[in-house]
Amino acid sequence: MELFYARPECISADEIELDDFERKHILNSLRKAAGDLISVTDGQGNLYQTRLIKQKPVLQLKIESAEFIPESEAQICLAAGFIRPNRLEFILEKCTELGVNRFCLLRSEFSNYAVKNIKRFEKITRQAIKQSQRYYLPRIEIFNSLKDFLTAGGEYSFKFAAIDSSYPLLISKLDLRDPKENTSCCLVIGPEGGFSSDETAALEENKFIPVSLGKNRLRAETAAVCGISIIIQGLHN
Amino acid sequence: MELFYARPECISADEIELDDFERKHILNSLRKAAGDLISVTDGQGNLYQTRLIKQKPVLQLKIESAEFIPESEAQICLAAGFIRPNRLEFILEKCTELGVNRFCLLRSEFSNYAVKNIKRFEKITRQAIKQSQRYYLPRIEIFNSLKDFLTAGGEYSFKFAAIDSSYPLLISKLDLRDPKENTSCCLVIGPEGGFSSDETAALEENKFIPVSLGKNRLRAETAAVCGISIIIQGLHN
Repeated sequence: MELFYARPECISADEIELDDFERKHILNSLRKAAGDLISVTDGQGNLYQTRLIKQKPVLQLKIESAEFIPESEAQICLAAGFIRPNRLEFILEKCTELGVNRFCLLRSEFSNYAVKNIKRFEKITRQAIKQSQRYYLPRIEIFNSLKDFLTAGGEYSFKFAAIDSSYPLLISKLDLRDPKENTSCCLVIGPEGGFSSDETAALEENKFIPVSLGKNRLRAETAAVCGISIIIQGLHN
Repeated sequence: MELFYARPECISADEIELDDFERKHILNSLRKAAGDLISVTDGQGNLYQTRLIKQKPVLQLKIESAEFIPESEAQICLAAGFIRPNRLEFILEKCTELGVNRFCLLRSEFSNYAVKNIKRFEKITRQAIKQSQRYYLPRIEIFNSLKDFLTAGGEYSFKFAAIDSSYPLLISKLDLRDPKENTSCCLVIGPEGGFSSDETAALEENKFIPVSLGKNRLRAETAAVCGISIIIQGLHN
C-alpha cells in the first residue's frame, strides 16, 4: 500500500486536498487517474481511504472511510547535537522510519553547525512516515543548549546518554526480559567531538545513564541510528 | 588520533608510500609537515607509527614502530541484495563503522540494480575503517544469485534472515546473557521488495533463522544498519 500525507488543515469532513509534492507523486510517478483509490494519513493517527475525483486545478480526493489508529508504540525521543545538515537529515529520515516520536535538536558546546531549515526537516520526516507506514508525524524541537533541553526535557522511563566506550553497552541496560509495550525512552547523542565535561555532568545530574554503543568510533549519525535500533527492539521485545 | 590507510604492497620494511587521496588529506586538509607523526594501517591488522620525511614527488613516511592488533572482535557477515548504488554505499559505510568484517552483495530475484563500481565500494570501506579506528578492512564479495551465496556461504554460529514483521524480533533470538566474544554471525537482508518465496525457502533450508526488525516497513539500507547494530551489541555484550 502506498501512503500519502496531507496536513490536517487540508482535510475537510468529506474531501482532502493534497499539496504539490504529493500531487506530482500521484499523477506523474504513479500515474493515478480519476476513480483510483488513495490512502492518506494526517500524521496524527488518522488513516483515510479516498477516491481520486479531480486532477485539476488541484488534486481532489473524496473520503470514503476514515479510521483512527491509536498510538500504541513506545514513546521514543532522540536528542541530538547539531551536526552537518546532510548528516542531521539522515538521522531524521532513518530514525523516523525506525519509530522515533520526538526529535530534540540541540546546540551543544561542541556543535559546529547551526540549524536553519526546519521546513526541509519536516519534509524529510513526512516522507519517512509514508515510507515506513506510520500514521504519526514525529515532533521536531530545537534547543539553544543542552541545559535548555534538560529543563524542558519531559518524563521518560529510560534515559540514556551515549558518552563513550568506557561505559556499559546500551543493550545491557535495557531490561529485555520484561516486555514494556507502553514504556518511553530518551536517548541523547552528542555532536562529533561529543559533550563537554560540564554537559556530561549535567546529563548525569538529570539521571541520564551513560552508555556505550560499542568500541568502534562511530559518526554521530551512525551512533543515533545504532542506538535507536537497539532501543526500539529492546522496548518492543 | 587520525588514522590513514595504505595498501599492503605500498609498505616496505622501513617506509610507507601513501596514495593521492591520503596525500591530499594529510597535506591539504590537515597541513602536516616533515617531522610530523602519522598513524597508518594496512587494513590487515597492522598499525604503523610513522614520521613524515618527504612531501614530494610522493609522500614518504618512515616507519618508527609497528604493532599487530589481533582481530578479537566477533566475525560479522552482512549479505545484502543489490539495491540502488547510493543506498548500497550507505550500507557499506555505516556497517563498516559498526564492525562488519565481510560483505556479500548478491543479485537476488527482486534486485532491480546491478553492481558495477567495486573500486568505489572499496574506497568507502577504507574511509570507514579510518573513521571508526578499525585495523581490518572488510572483504567485499559479489554473488550472481542467493543460491551462489548459500553454496559459498561459510560457517557462522548464528545465521539470520530479515524476512518480515510476522517473525520474532532479531533481538529475541540472540542469547544476550551469554557473552560470546569470538562468535560469528551472518545476517541476510533482501532488496526493496524482499525475497521471492523460493529464496525464502532456500534460506530456511540453509538454517537461516527468519527474523523481524520491527513492525515498521524499513528501507533496505535502514534494515541493514538496524540489524547489524543489534547483532554487534548482542555478540559483544
